[in-house]
Amino acid sequence: MAAAASGHPALVIDIGGTKLAAGVAEPAGRMITWASIPTPDSLDAEQLWRTLEALLRKVLGEAGRDEAGLDESGDGLAGVGCGCGGPMEWPAGRVSPLNIAAWRDFPLRDRLAGRFPEIPVRVHNDAICLAVGEHWRGAGRGTGNMLGVVVSTGVGGGLVLGGRLIDGASGNAGHVGHVVVDPEDGPPCACGGRGCLEAIARGPALAAWAREQGWRPGQAGATAADLAADAAGGHPVALAAMRRAGRALGIALASATHLCDLEVVSVGGGLSQAGALLFDPAEEFLRAHAKFRFARKVRVVPAALGQSAGLVGAAALIFAADRYWTGG
Amino acid sequence: MAAAASGHPALVIDIGGTKLAAGVAEPAGRMITWASIPTPDSLDAEQLWRTLEALLRKVLGEAGRDEAGLDESGDGLAGVGCGCGGPMEWPAGRVSPLNIAAWRDFPLRDRLAGRFPEIPVRVHNDAICLAVGEHWRGAGRGTGNMLGVVVSTGVGGGLVLGGRLIDGASGNAGHVGHVVVDPEDGPPCACGGRGCLEAIARGPALAAWAREQGWRPGQAGATAADLAADAAGGHPVALAAMRRAGRALGIALASATHLCDLEVVSVGGGLSQAGALLFDPAEEFLRAHAKFRFARKVRVVPAALGQSAGLVGAAALIFAADRYWTGG
Repeated sequence: MAAAASGHPALVIDIGGTKLAAGVAEPAGRMITWASIPTPDSLDAEQLWRTLEALLRKVLGEAGRDEAGLDESGDGLAGVGCGCGGPMEWPAGRVSPLNIAAWRDFPLRDRLAGRFPEIPVRVHNDAICLAVGEHWRGAGRGTGNMLGVVVSTGVGGGLVLGGRLIDGASGNAGHVGHVVVDPEDGPPCACGGRGCLEAIARGPALAAWAREQGWRPGQAGATAADLAADAAGGHPVALAAMRRAGRALGIALASATHLCDLEVVSVGGGLSQAGALLFDPAEEFLRAHAKFRFARKVRVVPAALGQSAGLVGAAALIFAADRYWTGG
Repeated sequence: MAAAASGHPALVIDIGGTKLAAGVAEPAGRMITWASIPTPDSLDAEQLWRTLEALLRKVLGEAGRDEAGLDESGDGLAGVGCGCGGPMEWPAGRVSPLNIAAWRDFPLRDRLAGRFPEIPVRVHNDAICLAVGEHWRGAGRGTGNMLGVVVSTGVGGGLVLGGRLIDGASGNAGHVGHVVVDPEDGPPCACGGRGCLEAIARGPALAAWAREQGWRPGQAGATAADLAADAAGGHPVALAAMRRAGRALGIALASATHLCDLEVVSVGGGLSQAGALLFDPAEEFLRAHAKFRFARKVRVVPAALGQSAGLVGAAALIFAADRYWTGG
């Protein structure tokens, strides 16, 4: 697109407990370049910040830009969009990512704004960026009412209603992982509640449940990915575990569909790689609980963007701010 | 307010299974006059329409206006706002109210538009009008993110996020009555699902449950209101029934708060008249399941508007359409 090629690009960032990713994105959302590294452990807050800075320099250099983001003609960036693991104070962008111990109340937005003054710097929850990416350029494109779900180490999400990202009172809307599925008999949840979708369907909880039921994976550190592989191979406990996750997901999606009158739910994250093993029971339980004519219309689809989905969403915070950014 | 006094008023209507109400509302939402009658049974569709027309003529006359809505100077109405029991095709306003057998696919909006051509005629779900009324002029005034709940013969609701009414894909957002609370052990729901909030907490279901548990009310046709009165008098089964409803409400509100990052939930409808007997267990279970810092901030409050809440919401569809009407 001519408009995309002529506009200034954005620096985009995705910070999670597993990887740090950064890229330079065109206005239409295509990545000019991007790179990722495993999130380092055992660094302090400043060391981790310097690691991120080095990654930003690298992708800016690959895109023909200097540290300040200027190209050879001296043209700058349109902005900096960043997804980061929650919780965070939003829109202030003070982050305390659950899976990154080094950062507690780390002023990520202010630090980025210090490096890139005079352009918009916008930080939002990483699951929200994934959902925004899927709505802007992925599985939810063209729909007005979408929930994006990520089933991974945790279960997160983001909510787009009436064509706009819903932030709620404090930027925390979309926490579908804490829709209550089994209030009495469900497992305790890290949030302090009980029977949340996340407490049942997050990868580690699912693998632990399977072990309790007699799953004996080949290696000690076996994860939900191994569980999904064993389920694909027909292992009965692994199959039961995937059904357990799909059931919880389907019930939570029925509740979300009734409350928000959704058109589409995109499901991504590691566990979604299991495909039909997860999606089939999710459909079964969703359909058992969502019988109204309006609710029957909702479609559950795999997330369409790959590893760069979070970066695409971060780009949308800059390039489609009218729909995806209310943080001022 | 001068602006209110100088603007044209709206004709407002609230059509439910129990009563038909109509009024003439100032631009600020105050009722110049209003009246209601019990919803007649055993009429056919046209007879019911003529009953409604007579009610409209009556309130227009009381407000000094003729059948076409014109006053002595020939000034007309700003519009017609109408809440009606669902389900309906929205925004077309073809209604099939569950509790009004006479109207099935009745073209309510078109009929009203025929009577009042050349002004906006807007029909929405009655529970949504109640929620809109509470957000515009009641318990949610000044907040950006509110769920309005009505616990009555059914359990309905309306969702306001980012300061605007959320309609969803088909005008059905806000169906909090079908958030799933007890997917395994809960009672079957009229929607076709199981364990929905409504299946547990709707007045008739609650009274039936109490009877099964040994509640022996004084009269044969005893309702949830009688149950609440007996609970207030200390009847143990009646108390258990109110706790059962409050528990289901609290769990559903935890799910809704996590998904939508709500600031306030207003609860109205007949059963809410029970006060602490309903609100205390609702708070208890909400707080047990909503432990995140952001979720702990939600407040559950009684609806502030009385019997005319639905009419106030219908007025908002006309006078605050930028926030409450997306139906074109």
